[in-house]
Amino acid sequence: MLLIAVFGAHQCSPDVYEAARRVGEEIARAGAVLVCGGTTGVMEGVCRGAKEAGGLTVGILPGDSREQANPYVDIPIVTGMGDARNVIIARTCHAAIAISGGYGTLSEIAFALKFGRPVVGLGTWVASREGAAAPVVAANSPEDAVCRALEAARHTAGLTRA
Amino acid sequence: MLLIAVFGAHQCSPDVYEAARRVGEEIARAGAVLVCGGTTGVMEGVCRGAKEAGGLTVGILPGDSREQANPYVDIPIVTGMGDARNVIIARTCHAAIAISGGYGTLSEIAFALKFGRPVVGLGTWVASREGAAAPVVAANSPEDAVCRALEAARHTAGLTRA
Amino acid sequence: MLLIAVFGAHQCSPDVYEAARRVGEEIARAGAVLVCGGTTGVMEGVCRGAKEAGGLTVGILPGDSREQANPYVDIPIVTGMGDARNVIIARTCHAAIAISGGYGTLSEIAFALKFGRPVVGLGTWVASREGAAAPVVAANSPEDAVCRALEAARHTAGLTRA
Amino acid sequence: MLLIAVFGAHQCSPDVYEAARRVGEEIARAGAVLVCGGTTGVMEGVCRGAKEAGGLTVGILPGDSREQANPYVDIPIVTGMGDARNVIIARTCHAAIAISGGYGTLSEIAFALKFGRPVVGLGTWVASREGAAAPVVAANSPEDAVCRALEAARHTAGLTRA
Repeated sequence: MLLIAVFGAHQCSPDVYEAARRVGEEIARAGAVLVCGGTTGVMEGVCRGAKEAGGLTVGILPGDSREQANPYVDIPIVTGMGDARNVIIARTCHAAIAISGGYGTLSEIAFALKFGRPVVGLGTWVASREGAAAPVVAANSPEDAVCRALEAARHTAGLTRA
Repeated sequence: MLLIAVFGAHQCSPDVYEAARRVGEEIARAGAVLVCGGTTGVMEGVCRGAKEAGGLTVGILPGDSREQANPYVDIPIVTGMGDARNVIIARTCHAAIAISGGYGTLSEIAFALKFGRPVVGLGTWVASREGAAAPVVAANSPEDAVCRALEAARHTAGLTRA
Repeated sequence: MLLIAVFGAHQCSPDVYEAARRVGEEIARAGAVLVCGGTTGVMEGVCRGAKEAGGLTVGILPGDSREQANPYVDIPIVTGMGDARNVIIARTCHAAIAISGGYGTLSEIAFALKFGRPVVGLGTWVASREGAAAPVVAANSPEDAVCRALEAARHTAGLTRA
Repeated sequence: MLLIAVFGAHQCSPDVYEAARRVGEEIARAGAVLVCGGTTGVMEGVCRGAKEAGGLTVGILPGDSREQANPYVDIPIVTGMGDARNVIIARTCHAAIAISGGYGTLSEIAFALKFGRPVVGLGTWVASREGAAAPVVAANSPEDAVCRALEAARHTAGLTRA
């Protein structure tokens, strides 16, 4: 079972929400499990898309209560650890897709790269140090993002459990 | 969807393992989702029982890798936070069953009670302060433990999401 | 430098507050650093006593802001991780004193024992499993509690850094 | 008491180590407390500089034991939470200085910005989204970095506790 994380902010424009919804749909159609932060904005869009396509969704919540989950989360994991839950999302996935996002999304990208999880970006952060860019793969559509993330996830899964 | 947590140690006797397996079976037969620490001992026994009865299992792992999960975990949540993951197990469930266990199990019981999650005990810790015992409900068999935990979980779920 | 943790609730009676204050005083007089949860109740009493005796106090806060610290905390560590910060208090100390307390205090006792940190109790929880009690040393006064904790802490420090 | 965090990697070149040492010296000379991850590389350099100038150093350690602290850490906070401790460093400071660094450093910068803590950079990450750069202030020397961080920290402290 492949776990694909989606990173994104709890507030977003309608266009970004729609992109997230399409990402969720494609993840579910591929039979992968969606992991995300479980609240509003991009996280709601992607969970909604996944549920509309019959998928399974896991929400790693920052707060103290499962009430914080959006209505499309199947399995709410209630951490009560605030933003430290970003670490868990990044560790849990085989690969990740970052959609737009704020500083929280940037932290998730950083952790995923630190933990060796491939990251695909859709209109998200670009980070570089001494002229060398962090290896976030740029996608040009929601479908392209999921296609690239699935390929990378299969590679990760193959490396870690044959 | 009801989430039932099982608290227990990563090492246990064959008798305790068998009790855990029967607890897992009953949780799955009731259609509830099992949440536990996802590694060995009691955690393996309960996941195995749940899978043998066709259930869904979530393992909240302490370490850095999903490789740490026992073979009966469907959804490994990789926290990398060591024993702090006990907090997450206690917050995530509607009700919990503690089976035997060591100090880690005692911490999980304490957190569940702090967060208002009912706890059923099967040969586990008894804690008291100034003569007043912590409200852990004693069960006399695996089946009895699950029956009591499910009843309490329905009550919790009703209180928090009608 | 010895680090002594004090475990206790954020609400307490005036008698318990006074006992905590005397514990803090004795910790500071011995030249040890006080580590606690940094908020109100027992945590305030113990920090106040330590500052009145010229000691150094570290508060491991559950919330998002250093504003949560009581006025007697010198070094506020802002975790934003809620009750998961109890794990950090238990790991950070050489030995601990538990004063009265609720379920949070019980979780701290459990973690300290799990991590091999000696625990001295002053009117606090008693926990047992199959008739065997967890090894919390009972003290009969604040001064006695600190005396026993310091002796245990020196032993711990000697074992881990000669 | 102002708390200045330094973000940086556990491995670094001799030049970066020397820059970190000078940053630590300046923090201590200004009477501020140094907060960092407490292990090797940049973290050792900055703690060493602070101690050579008579300062106070706090190390928020990722591992299970205070043995992980470098010899220049006065107060080791033992989290046992791995990289999730980066969140705590970012929350605890009034302002931060990022020196060179890898993905962990990028996560610390992201969290500090999310929590409203000013960040000064010394040869570190540049991150941008849709052409807008994250507000990391570039410094041209260790002394300049500390000067800018202290000014920002005084501002933060003034806003949050008059």
